[in-house]
Amino acid sequence: MTAAALPLVLSLGEPAGVGPEIVAKAWTALRETGHAFAIIGDARLLATQGVPVSEVLSASEAGPAFGRALPVIHHPTPAPVTIGQPDPANAGTVADWIERGVDMVLSGEASGLVTAPIAKAPLYAAGFRFPGHTEFIAELTADAPYRGTRGPVMMLTARNLRACLVTIHVPLDQVPELVTAERICRTARVVHESMKRDFGIAAPRLALAALNPHAGESGSLGLQEIEVLRPAVEILRMEGITITDPLPADTMFHDDARQTYDAAICLYHDQALIPVKTLDFWGGVNATLGLPIVRTSPDHGTGFDIAGRGIARPDSLIAAIRLASEMAANRNPL
Amino acid sequence: MTAAALPLVLSLGEPAGVGPEIVAKAWTALRETGHAFAIIGDARLLATQGVPVSEVLSASEAGPAFGRALPVIHHPTPAPVTIGQPDPANAGTVADWIERGVDMVLSGEASGLVTAPIAKAPLYAAGFRFPGHTEFIAELTADAPYRGTRGPVMMLTARNLRACLVTIHVPLDQVPELVTAERICRTARVVHESMKRDFGIAAPRLALAALNPHAGESGSLGLQEIEVLRPAVEILRMEGITITDPLPADTMFHDDARQTYDAAICLYHDQALIPVKTLDFWGGVNATLGLPIVRTSPDHGTGFDIAGRGIARPDSLIAAIRLASEMAANRNPL
Repeated sequence: MTAAALPLVLSLGEPAGVGPEIVAKAWTALRETGHAFAIIGDARLLATQGVPVSEVLSASEAGPAFGRALPVIHHPTPAPVTIGQPDPANAGTVADWIERGVDMVLSGEASGLVTAPIAKAPLYAAGFRFPGHTEFIAELTADAPYRGTRGPVMMLTARNLRACLVTIHVPLDQVPELVTAERICRTARVVHESMKRDFGIAAPRLALAALNPHAGESGSLGLQEIEVLRPAVEILRMEGITITDPLPADTMFHDDARQTYDAAICLYHDQALIPVKTLDFWGGVNATLGLPIVRTSPDHGTGFDIAGRGIARPDSLIAAIRLASEMAANRNPL
Repeated sequence: MTAAALPLVLSLGEPAGVGPEIVAKAWTALRETGHAFAIIGDARLLATQGVPVSEVLSASEAGPAFGRALPVIHHPTPAPVTIGQPDPANAGTVADWIERGVDMVLSGEASGLVTAPIAKAPLYAAGFRFPGHTEFIAELTADAPYRGTRGPVMMLTARNLRACLVTIHVPLDQVPELVTAERICRTARVVHESMKRDFGIAAPRLALAALNPHAGESGSLGLQEIEVLRPAVEILRMEGITITDPLPADTMFHDDARQTYDAAICLYHDQALIPVKTLDFWGGVNATLGLPIVRTSPDHGTGFDIAGRGIARPDSLIAAIRLASEMAANRNPL
């Protein structure tokens, strides 16, 4: 079996949130026609979700059983799970699920990793020292060989929009100083390479969002476009990367505009997330580019407030599984 | 004739841009069922647009003729107009058109003003000292009586989104210091009053966008929500204004979210303009709230690059006329 046809592996994420419910719903939606996956988590918990489960020892075993039952790599939580109430006693296991998922992709048992949402507070309480999934997975894959510019770069997708971030979780007043030519160039290189490697786009077209309104209007509404962004564009073009001049951010995300590029390079969180979540609130996906493994994630949280009520929507997780499948197929062609 | 049934008045804006073309197209679209309007501009120029024109002396005369011909208050440019090439020699007249339009609404000859786009460079070259339409019109109406909190506040509309701005044309790195509780409160008061006065909403619901990602995530991603935005919300609520806590800006503009409020209070240009132009690139409208007159404008520029080619879309101007009609009807009920 080639890497692209290998199953994906999902980490269950916070067990007291909507994870078990949306994983079961995603399996139901994808069992007949979707890319097979195995879930790493607590099989007892998943067995309460109204779907048949089948214990497997490795993601690579998920394929044959997938149409009949949700394949689970059973890795139990030490403490019982109370829906809606995260327990730091289980946080180490939540982190272990992610680590095992990463290992399975690195070892060639799975073609990509999809991570269900985690809750940060219990992880921090248990000593977890990473801001989130992305940084943890970057650390776990730091020693794995990788040909190309290393990320992590966060990409959010919605419909045909791929929005990639130069800065992520920082206060807005720190954004202007953090938007350096070096960060823009590094992000754009990772995205350029990923468009070729993970999306099969031979000649990627990148669009660079400006920092200031009207892209600074020739300097009268801010100088960063002239002093930082344009020099970065010049460097990238010398490297052979196709990227626009800094574009006014308000006019680059509508239907016609999105046809003109393969990925947008956005400078701050809301510049990317506003169009993503406005265009497709339920189906947005978070992907990490520039890692030795394919990794995607739904673009929402643990949903403690609605967990256990049967109303959580699996749209984003399903889209994350489909995106991981697409990326894995391109990265490891049959 | 009551004020609401009075015609609107349109200022032609930059005569070398798409203004004459989109005015003619808007009249064609609205002649049978739309709110009557008169255009202040050069009748000779409008007569070249392939529609019948009818000279009138006042906006109030536009009604009876409107179905048969485009009513024009002839006010010629001193220099000939070359399409695509703005001429500072005509800039004074462009400003005069706006001023006459304001005067007609103040004097009760017209129910509202719609301004076609102007080009700033020739106006500045001719000594115009305002950043744009909005500030100029605010100055022209400064001595007119007005009951309520005075603006101007810029509002952009797209579909069912009304996005109102606390700061507008400033570099992003100046936004955090300009977003004060006082500015938020003043903007929210103007918007609250306008929702009642201009939109007939008895109990307006305002939604306040946060400055930082995830609305600052309890302070870990920025302190402005705690130190500036929440205190402003408390003041406004004590005044009886219904307004949300600061909301993460990325999750407040999708279809379901927009149902929960009548107007969004946005803190900076792209925070409002990204969702507006992503949702409705062609039909967005700019309205100025908190003035003694109703004033709207299409949300695009002069289009010198496409002027004279017959391809300019009148969608935004038509939407601006419709919005002015709605606001005038609410402000001056029959």
